[in-house]
Amino acid sequence: MRRIRLTIEYDGTNYAGWQRQENGVTVQQLIEENIQKVTGERVTLHGSGRTDSGVHALGQVAHFDTSARMPAEKFCYALNTGLPEDIRVIDSREVPLSFHARFSAKKKHYRYAINNGPHASALFRNFELHVHRPLDVSAMAQAAKALEGTHDFSAFKAVECKLDAVRTVYRSEISTEGSRIYYDIVGNGFLYNMVRIIVGTLIEIGKGKLSADDMLRILESRDRGQAGPTAPAKGLTLMSVEYPEDGDEG
Amino acid sequence: MRRIRLTIEYDGTNYAGWQRQENGVTVQQLIEENIQKVTGERVTLHGSGRTDSGVHALGQVAHFDTSARMPAEKFCYALNTGLPEDIRVIDSREVPLSFHARFSAKKKHYRYAINNGPHASALFRNFELHVHRPLDVSAMAQAAKALEGTHDFSAFKAVECKLDAVRTVYRSEISTEGSRIYYDIVGNGFLYNMVRIIVGTLIEIGKGKLSADDMLRILESRDRGQAGPTAPAKGLTLMSVEYPEDGDEG
Repeated sequence: MRRIRLTIEYDGTNYAGWQRQENGVTVQQLIEENIQKVTGERVTLHGSGRTDSGVHALGQVAHFDTSARMPAEKFCYALNTGLPEDIRVIDSREVPLSFHARFSAKKKHYRYAINNGPHASALFRNFELHVHRPLDVSAMAQAAKALEGTHDFSAFKAVECKLDAVRTVYRSEISTEGSRIYYDIVGNGFLYNMVRIIVGTLIEIGKGKLSADDMLRILESRDRGQAGPTAPAKGLTLMSVEYPEDGDEG
Repeated sequence: MRRIRLTIEYDGTNYAGWQRQENGVTVQQLIEENIQKVTGERVTLHGSGRTDSGVHALGQVAHFDTSARMPAEKFCYALNTGLPEDIRVIDSREVPLSFHARFSAKKKHYRYAINNGPHASALFRNFELHVHRPLDVSAMAQAAKALEGTHDFSAFKAVECKLDAVRTVYRSEISTEGSRIYYDIVGNGFLYNMVRIIVGTLIEIGKGKLSADDMLRILESRDRGQAGPTAPAKGLTLMSVEYPEDGDEG
């Protein structure tokens, strides 16, 4: 038995998210079905974590076990043949049986894209949120920085999420490129809807409805009711997942 | 009667091109229908030129005449309300009646995007051509430069195109960004399929099937049979159209 690690890029627009479910086609399900076509084995594909419907990935990581003899690096080509064009396996390699896509993950990097120009974009409509009102980028940048460190992020988790909320955020940063605003967050783990609630709060700050200083107050309140609304899924992309075996990129 | 100039962004994936036709929904048709909804007038929308099915635009320009009293700059908002999300009018302004989107156009800028990485991209699949084999970028860059100037581009026009083929190319340039290769061409006008045939030829050069020096030989042959195949539409985007009234960007 070998363990195969996949790196997966997907456009989440047309899927009911990553995780297999009763209603709606999911990325996990389609890849599992294709692994079965290629290997003849029914497998479970373990992702680094779920992503919601409409959320994208440039570097989702998942693993499965197989007794098939195909060279590990050939799996990406074999799987892509059967997968729709909006899901691509961009890397496949053998890993030790001790590797687990979810439990071994050390850091995850998410990016949220906001188009702050006067008009929504026809080309990028599924990959960014359009906000017409000019946002105060420096206030957003200051507020974003306040989240770095180890904190209880209860204020930024969906009410139905019952997990312990202490997480470490290594990077929480606003940058701009023309009229686009990007929010990059790297952490050791994320709560359900955490990034989207943080972004919803940053947008309230950008609009002047909250001040930059409110971010720390909201964080310390541990009260979801204090934070902004959950930003739409389509602007969010899981950029990469980092494992100890990858070495430390710093 | 006033003349209104529109700047339009569209994702060409789901359309039968720009120009109104019997079979298939086109961008021109949808905007004309929405102008009629907004003004009550049946108008003809004159584009700077047609784009094929699958070709995109970040800055297509078109004009129409209207006796509606709406402020010119409001048309973009009024039209976007009724248009699908993959077509956005990003600017509207009044222009002199002497302005013509097609005949007044001075320069057009097209960009073709090639993904030369090992795998196609799930997110950008409709906006770039994936070429798996590593391309010789410096040979492509050298060949691209050979097209600058005023030439007879008969070798790079669709056989059915009967127009005189002398055009001036101001810029013909290859650049890279990671594993992406971009081809930018700015000219005073383009023949049917001209950019896509040039790109098809550049790819043959990048693959080593033709040499960089062959570009000049092909140009001088004025023979479509000497050039490479027509590259797929999806990698091509009309970036902008320049008019004398815009001032000279150099």
